[in-house]
Amino acid sequence: MAEVVHMIDSEVFLAFSTYATIVILKMMLMSIMTSYYRLTKQVFANIEDTTLAKTTEDRKKLVRSDPDVERVRRCHQNDLENIVPFVVIGLLYSLTGPDLSSALLHFRVFVGSRFIHTVTYVMALPQPSRALSFGVGLCATVSMAYRVLTTSLFL
Amino acid sequence: MAEVVHMIDSEVFLAFSTYATIVILKMMLMSIMTSYYRLTKQVFANIEDTTLAKTTEDRKKLVRSDPDVERVRRCHQNDLENIVPFVVIGLLYSLTGPDLSSALLHFRVFVGSRFIHTVTYVMALPQPSRALSFGVGLCATVSMAYRVLTTSLFL
Amino acid sequence: MAEVVHMIDSEVFLAFSTYATIVILKMMLMSIMTSYYRLTKQVFANIEDTTLAKTTEDRKKLVRSDPDVERVRRCHQNDLENIVPFVVIGLLYSLTGPDLSSALLHFRVFVGSRFIHTVTYVMALPQPSRALSFGVGLCATVSMAYRVLTTSLFL
Repeated sequence: MAEVVHMIDSEVFLAFSTYATIVILKMMLMSIMTSYYRLTKQVFANIEDTTLAKTTEDRKKLVRSDPDVERVRRCHQNDLENIVPFVVIGLLYSLTGPDLSSALLHFRVFVGSRFIHTVTYVMALPQPSRALSFGVGLCATVSMAYRVLTTSLFL
Repeated sequence: MAEVVHMIDSEVFLAFSTYATIVILKMMLMSIMTSYYRLTKQVFANIEDTTLAKTTEDRKKLVRSDPDVERVRRCHQNDLENIVPFVVIGLLYSLTGPDLSSALLHFRVFVGSRFIHTVTYVMALPQPSRALSFGVGLCATVSMAYRVLTTSLFL
Repeated sequence: MAEVVHMIDSEVFLAFSTYATIVILKMMLMSIMTSYYRLTKQVFANIEDTTLAKTTEDRKKLVRSDPDVERVRRCHQNDLENIVPFVVIGLLYSLTGPDLSSALLHFRVFVGSRFIHTVTYVMALPQPSRALSFGVGLCATVSMAYRVLTTSLFL
């Protein structure tokens, strides 16, 4: 019994809690960045958002697509597709009682790779910088999933 | 030890469990709403979904885009981008042992703001109604993240 | 106290852990599949990804849309919209102390339905195969949500 409670109150779980919160806040920043680009470039997805334009004709013109806004949105979508798996598998991994050093390595590599991924994506840096940061994050999650499945497989 | 177990079996955790389930069910309703609009307006994303049309020519015409369907899909996407962070951070926040009253305030404000957000989005109500409901939900999540990071930071 | 700890260390929780990890790994496979289609069909979303083309003119032509890539992306999006609710509600459901047999039924039906959904979507099998697999997964999640709300409602 003490063992299980230890797992939930452990330094591993505190570390997971910290890194998961940081990387989720980073993902939420993408929403703010999308809004910022939409407002500064006057590019909207909904007619009711174009309140600053005067005539109906002008308002309709602001409902359009823009390469920079689309880029930020793709980056946000990639975050959703990768950070959600990290959070779910990281939580289960934390409960399997891994070494603190090995858990910290996984969390730091993943969170670091996602920050680099965002910078490479938004600034359109030359490949393979973005592909590498995506791949490193994926490997960290798969490595944690491997531990979850090998320590607590129950089909 | 008793303290940790208390946290998981606490009224705060039960409240989180209830509000998280309600807001996730609301998000799942968006899938049903998309299907409803697609069927009633005969607007499909895949050729194999157009089974009611007779000729191949007619079927191809039904694979198209529609402003109302796209609006519901954007609302669904915004739910994903905001409800997932709430669920992750809300779970970790519940484990930090907050006051019941302050936890309930966060959960109710967030869930309420998302219901209002959906109504304002789907009915295209004038701004800033949608922006405000989005912002209020974001603040509730950020406020919980602040507590998680201040009570259990472990880098 | 022993009861709560039992819930977290129980076979139900191990089963949830296993099935959640499997279905999340399946979802992550969609990222790989998208990359595979983009590379083999030379269809890219970003100008910096078209490194194999020589001239700027050739590179711009590779930033385009393709029906097969879009199909895989829609399948991935549907996974996000359905697997995230399963994971959240499944975790809360596991903590309500359900029978092992009934929990396994829910997890197996959901995970099975999502594998079938992916096959029907990617291979464009005739409807209602995809609609049925989507519906079966939805019902499994709603059934677990019903138990969460009836056993631990706290508003």
